[in-house]
Amino acid sequence: MKTRYGILALLLAGAAAGQKQSKPLVLAEQGSFFVGGENKTLPAPPPPASPRPGGPPAFPGGDITINQMYVEYQIPVNGSRHVPVVMVHGCCLSSKTWETTPDGRLGWNEYFVRKDRPVYLADQVSRARSGFDPSTFNAVKAGTIPPSELPNVLDASHQAAWAIFRFGPTYGKAFPDEQFPVDAADELYKQMIPDLNAVLPMPSPTWTNMAALAVKLKGAILIGHSESGFFPEQAAMIDPAGVKGIVSIEMPCVTTLKPAELSTLAKIPILVMFGDHLGDIEGPFNFWPGAFDSCNTFVKQVSDAGGDAQMMSLPKMGIKGNSHMLMQDKNNLQLADLILAWIDKHVEKKATR
Amino acid sequence: MKTRYGILALLLAGAAAGQKQSKPLVLAEQGSFFVGGENKTLPAPPPPASPRPGGPPAFPGGDITINQMYVEYQIPVNGSRHVPVVMVHGCCLSSKTWETTPDGRLGWNEYFVRKDRPVYLADQVSRARSGFDPSTFNAVKAGTIPPSELPNVLDASHQAAWAIFRFGPTYGKAFPDEQFPVDAADELYKQMIPDLNAVLPMPSPTWTNMAALAVKLKGAILIGHSESGFFPEQAAMIDPAGVKGIVSIEMPCVTTLKPAELSTLAKIPILVMFGDHLGDIEGPFNFWPGAFDSCNTFVKQVSDAGGDAQMMSLPKMGIKGNSHMLMQDKNNLQLADLILAWIDKHVEKKATR
Repeated sequence: MKTRYGILALLLAGAAAGQKQSKPLVLAEQGSFFVGGENKTLPAPPPPASPRPGGPPAFPGGDITINQMYVEYQIPVNGSRHVPVVMVHGCCLSSKTWETTPDGRLGWNEYFVRKDRPVYLADQVSRARSGFDPSTFNAVKAGTIPPSELPNVLDASHQAAWAIFRFGPTYGKAFPDEQFPVDAADELYKQMIPDLNAVLPMPSPTWTNMAALAVKLKGAILIGHSESGFFPEQAAMIDPAGVKGIVSIEMPCVTTLKPAELSTLAKIPILVMFGDHLGDIEGPFNFWPGAFDSCNTFVKQVSDAGGDAQMMSLPKMGIKGNSHMLMQDKNNLQLADLILAWIDKHVEKKATR
Repeated sequence: MKTRYGILALLLAGAAAGQKQSKPLVLAEQGSFFVGGENKTLPAPPPPASPRPGGPPAFPGGDITINQMYVEYQIPVNGSRHVPVVMVHGCCLSSKTWETTPDGRLGWNEYFVRKDRPVYLADQVSRARSGFDPSTFNAVKAGTIPPSELPNVLDASHQAAWAIFRFGPTYGKAFPDEQFPVDAADELYKQMIPDLNAVLPMPSPTWTNMAALAVKLKGAILIGHSESGFFPEQAAMIDPAGVKGIVSIEMPCVTTLKPAELSTLAKIPILVMFGDHLGDIEGPFNFWPGAFDSCNTFVKQVSDAGGDAQMMSLPKMGIKGNSHMLMQDKNNLQLADLILAWIDKHVEKKATR
C-alpha cells in the first residue's frame, strides 16, 4: 500500500508542479520541409589537398541550392483550434534554442505543443540544417578572390555569451537572483555555432522565408529572439498577409520606419519582451539599455499609428533575474504562459484566462 | 451514405497501405542534447568590414566549444521494449535525411518510432546544429595563415547528386524503374549543405561521440549512411561497449582491418545494405561497384572472424530500382521493415516475424 500511495503522491506532485513531461505527448502530425531556396551555378571547387580515403572524388562544379530555410513542425491533436507559432532563434544559435533546456528541462517548443499550439521551428538561412553558400570560401582557397573578401564568421565565445546573455556582471560570477541555469552553461556553449549571416544578401532571405511560411500556414504568429528578434517585423513588412501576431524578444528595435511601414505593423498585434539586469553588465557588451530604449520608442511609434503593441518588461511586472535566454531560464514555462495568454487575448481574441 | 462509406473505404485503404500517419503519434518523451565537445581558446577575430546595423559588436576572442555532436530523440510509449536506434546522415546532408521525404512521405525516423523504437538522430560533428570550428576561416581572413590552408568546403552539386545518388544514367534522365521520387529532387537539393569534415581531426569526433552515445544509452544500434556508412564500425572499434548492432548503408568498406579490430566487430551483429544500379552510372562517379566489392570483402572478413555480418543486396532479393537514398525512396518503409526484422532477429534475438 505504501508503494501505491507513494506513486499517487508522486503523480499529484508532478501535476501540481506542471511537470507535463510525465504525460505522453500526443501528436496529430510532425515533419520537416524547406521554405524558399534558389539555384546558383558554381565553378568547380579546388580538389582537396589530401583526399580522405574512401571519400567521394572532387565535385566538378554545377548548380547548388542556396537561401533555403529548414523548418520542422509538430501539430498536436487539438492544434486546429489555435494559430500556429513559428519560433526563430538568435545569433550563433540554432533551433536547439527552443528545445530541451541546457539543464534538461522542457523547452518552449514542446510546452507550446502541449498547450495545443502547432509549433514550427526554423533554422535561420545560412545556419544549421538550412546550410550556407560556401562559394566565397572556395573562391578564396582557389585564389580567385583575396582573403579579405572572406565573410566574417561570427562565433561568440563563452565569455561574450556570459556578458551578452546577462548571466552575471563578470565572467563566471552570476547575479544572485539569476534565472539562467548557470551550472549548465557549458551545455549552452555547445549550442553556439558559427553565424554566417554576413554572407546573406539584403533583405535577408530568412525574413522573406518567414513571411512565405506564414502565408503557407494560412496565418501564423512569428516569434524572434535576439538577432532574429526584429525578424517578425521585417517579415511582415515584406508580406504581412500571413502574419497574425508578432512576439519580439530582447533585441534592438528599428526606430526609423516610414509611416507606410508603421501602418503595416499597426495592423498586427505585437508583443515585445525584455528580461532583467539590462544595465548591470560590465565591459563592451553593455548595449541592453539602448536596445530597451529603442524598443520602447518602437512600441510607442506603432501605438501612435493605431496599433496594438505592448512592451512587457519582466522586472516591472515583479519577475526578477531573467537573462537574455528567456526560453531557457528556470522560470521559462511561467514566461511561456505570459506569451500564451497574450496570444489568446490579442491574436485569438479569446476571453482572458 | 455514399460519403460515409467513402471515408470508411479511405480509412481501410490507408490502414492496408500502412499509412500510419493518420493515427496520432504518442511519445513517452522527446528532447535533444549534445554528446562530446571540448574547449578551444581563440584569438580575437577581425572586426566585420561593415557591421550590421543593430548587430552585436565584434567579439573579443575567448573560448569556444568544438567537436560537440547534436542529438535529438523521440521515445515511444513502448520504447523500453526495444534497443534504441541511432541514425547518422551522410555527406553534405543533415539529420533531415531521415525525416519527411522530399515528396512528403513518412521518414524512417518517425516510422521506427511508430514501430516502438527509441530513435536518436545525430547531426555529424562540423555539420548543421553541431556547428564547426571556424577558426581557420577567420585566421585566413586576418592574414595570419595563407588561403591555401583553408579547408575544402565540400558542397555537392545537383549534377553530382543525381549521379552519386543513382537517380539515372545522366543528369535529368531517371532509370525507368527508379525508386527515388525524382520529381521531388529539388527538395532533396535543399537538404544538401556544405560539408566541413575536412576540418576534423582523426579519429573523427563523430566516431568518438557515436561510441559515447551508445554507452550513454546503455546499448544502441548504430545506423550510418554513405559518408557515415562505416562510422558505426569506426565507433565500435573506438569503444564497442554500447554498440549492440550495426547497420551500414551504401559506402566503401575498409578491408585492411587488423585481426584485433575484426575480432571486436565479430562480436556485433552487422547488416550492410546496397540498392540497385550500382554499375549503371556514367561519368566520374562510377565508384559504386568498387564500394560494393569492398563491403563484400569486409563482410567475409568479419564472418571469417566468427562474426554475424550480412550483405543485403536489394536487387538480389528481387527489390529493384533503389537509389543511394534508401530512406527516401518510394519503397522506403518496405526497406525499413527489412532492417526492423533484421534487428529483431540478429540484435534482439526474437522469433522471426
